Amino acid sequence: MQTETRHLNILVGQSGGPTAVINSTLYGILKTRSVYPEITGIYGMINGIEGYLKGSMIDLSLLSQEEQELLKTTPGAYLGSCRYKMPEDQTSPIYQKMFDRLTEDQIDIVLYIGGNDSMDTVAKLSDYALKTGSSICFVGIPKTIDNDLCETDHTPGYGSAAKFVASNVRQIVMDAEVYQTKAVTIVEIMGRNAGWLTAAAKAARKYPEDNPVLIYLPEVNFYMDQMLNDVRELLKTKNAIVICISEGIHDEHGTLICEMGGRSATDVFGHKLLAGAGKVLENTIRQELGVKVRSVELNVTQRSSAVEASFTDVMEAVACGVKGVELAMEGWSGFMVTMHRIEDKVLYDIDYRGTKVTNVSNEVKSFPEKWITKGGTDISDEFLSYLIPLIQGESYPPMENGLPRFIYRKQSIG
Amino acid sequence: MQTETRHLNILVGQSGGPTAVINSTLYGILKTRSVYPEITGIYGMINGIEGYLKGSMIDLSLLSQEEQELLKTTPGAYLGSCRYKMPEDQTSPIYQKMFDRLTEDQIDIVLYIGGNDSMDTVAKLSDYALKTGSSICFVGIPKTIDNDLCETDHTPGYGSAAKFVASNVRQIVMDAEVYQTKAVTIVEIMGRNAGWLTAAAKAARKYPEDNPVLIYLPEVNFYMDQMLNDVRELLKTKNAIVICISEGIHDEHGTLICEMGGRSATDVFGHKLLAGAGKVLENTIRQELGVKVRSVELNVTQRSSAVEASFTDVMEAVACGVKGVELAMEGWSGFMVTMHRIEDKVLYDIDYRGTKVTNVSNEVKSFPEKWITKGGTDISDEFLSYLIPLIQGESYPPMENGLPRFIYRKQSIG
Repeated sequence: MQTETRHLNILVGQSGGPTAVINSTLYGILKTRSVYPEITGIYGMINGIEGYLKGSMIDLSLLSQEEQELLKTTPGAYLGSCRYKMPEDQTSPIYQKMFDRLTEDQIDIVLYIGGNDSMDTVAKLSDYALKTGSSICFVGIPKTIDNDLCETDHTPGYGSAAKFVASNVRQIVMDAEVYQTKAVTIVEIMGRNAGWLTAAAKAARKYPEDNPVLIYLPEVNFYMDQMLNDVRELLKTKNAIVICISEGIHDEHGTLICEMGGRSATDVFGHKLLAGAGKVLENTIRQELGVKVRSVELNVTQRSSAVEASFTDVMEAVACGVKGVELAMEGWSGFMVTMHRIEDKVLYDIDYRGTKVTNVSNEVKSFPEKWITKGGTDISDEFLSYLIPLIQGESYPPMENGLPRFIYRKQSIG
Repeated sequence: MQTETRHLNILVGQSGGPTAVINSTLYGILKTRSVYPEITGIYGMINGIEGYLKGSMIDLSLLSQEEQELLKTTPGAYLGSCRYKMPEDQTSPIYQKMFDRLTEDQIDIVLYIGGNDSMDTVAKLSDYALKTGSSICFVGIPKTIDNDLCETDHTPGYGSAAKFVASNVRQIVMDAEVYQTKAVTIVEIMGRNAGWLTAAAKAARKYPEDNPVLIYLPEVNFYMDQMLNDVRELLKTKNAIVICISEGIHDEHGTLICEMGGRSATDVFGHKLLAGAGKVLENTIRQELGVKVRSVELNVTQRSSAVEASFTDVMEAVACGVKGVELAMEGWSGFMVTMHRIEDKVLYDIDYRGTKVTNVSNEVKSFPEKWITKGGTDISDEFLSYLIPLIQGESYPPMENGLPRFIYRKQSIG
């Protein structure tokens, strides 16, 4: 008696902004080959759905053991990424083209690693499959430093970015406090709609009254005059003031603070000058309060630093990759991997589950109002209980000649 | 027969911009107590000469063993810093006040850790001591991320900043290359007059034609049109272009590129908008070439990151502290500790010596012209042979709750 052996081909794509651990998830997916003998091949879309539609695909089984290990600690997106939105209209020829290609490549499972928009892609493709009777299974795996996906305790990528933010804000504070002069330092942190990452700056404080003394999230309206008053007051008892802001802070009309800088500004060449929110605050404080001001935009380093990644985040990203394969093997098409914190345990522990991707794709999980304190200028200690487990442990990439060693595909002409 | 035991008191100050390892030098100084029984006390000026003149001094022997160990991996400046220039006129009452205080505090040796300007202070004070017959010995210990001090192979602080720059530029490149769209990323690196730190971006390349493809130092005139032509040409064969620039790049008339942004620009509040050189290039490339552009200013994180410090740099900073005490014990007043690379050894090795501080105080060591290649847009491989030994090894601070643990003095009102 012979049991029929299934032969399954998996296609993986990465989409949206890169993180320190999106490749750790890819590593996790590759690791499942050893437990699922029915997995025949694991392929990668180059530059997500957009590249795949143009025919870009690689065979990931060609990666050596050593290369796979490097994936675990390589930032960016090994497969390349895209920001491509599938059309709302399912009669668009793009859908037929996509499924023709998948059929031609004998793909059974599509795993898509990404954020909000990528989950929209998974929702549309799994829905199309259902309607057309295709057996191809589509599973989403979360990834975003913004931590703004619903239905999951947190997202892979957030822990590492949060650790980078907290650690570097602490070090910027150490730097900012060396002089006796009155000075203000503004640190601008990523997060256009959600303040999760900026809130991590709270963990930078070494003691209760330590810097950063003011933290502003996009979940709260920002009032320039109130901020100036607060800074003026704080400068009476401190020499160095450090303020952390989300890039997406806005006034009560919803106007972004960063837009207030660029509207009329031009450089000597007549070019429009686009400045960030930090720069706008810097100029305002300098002119209104007459103190030394510096603004620091943490910029892409906060999402690209594998050197300062959280070990917990790396291992959870790996586990999400594994869970993605498990969900697909069980046939949960149109689902996304989720992480659930087991509340009644003494030690922090995560249970990996799945949720309908439509519960995630068009929603944003804002930073909870209950954790915003002091009239929108501070974060509660309860948030720290949530955050601290996510930034535990270090994950150093292998070093070569004093620098981190990564796996990479050489750039091609687009 | 009884030999007279000397009783010596040492006073240490930190001055100028903070680095990742200026406290490692302080650690080295404290460690000398165990080999010199004649050292009675080691004191610290709070906020350098400026604070000391106001009476701010602490007893460093009160630091526990554990606190001393933390100093070794704490960024910023534990003692606080200042930017204070001693008057040229030695009849100024400041000099008499300074020496009265030193005499009152029974100080025999003053160690001043700093860069160019701090060495000017050492030069003036040692000269004044010589002229007035004071036996107080003044020794300078180098510190600057700029690496622009003469008479020394390199300066403590440079290796760690260079490692941070090379490592993070490499990671920014990984991040920048994920999309298929034509895009330019500009990374602005510290160094107003000397390009040493920006040159370290050369080490970020993983293979010869890799990003960053253009590197601009302040030692070479910057021509906007030539840069635009180079970028236009490079975009024909690459999707993502990464450019590294020193903050101090300037045109052939010596006008800083960063000044070209701010001259006429104001925000909606009417405040003058000061933008960095990276922002000016960003706006110019966006409008002239019509591609996606992002600029990243590494800012203070490059000098404040103890988490990404070079182990070699930390240990050399410690050794410079020890050598500073040695020079002072031998009576070399008016000297600065120097580092000499022993050229005929197979392995990298440093010999610690001393030089007259006047050889250093009013000079800047520019990045050598011989190492600037491709018409001022690249750096030679010979520079890498110089740089790579300085960034070897990692020096991780102790971690607590997922974040680096540091020693600090709480801020006081100035």
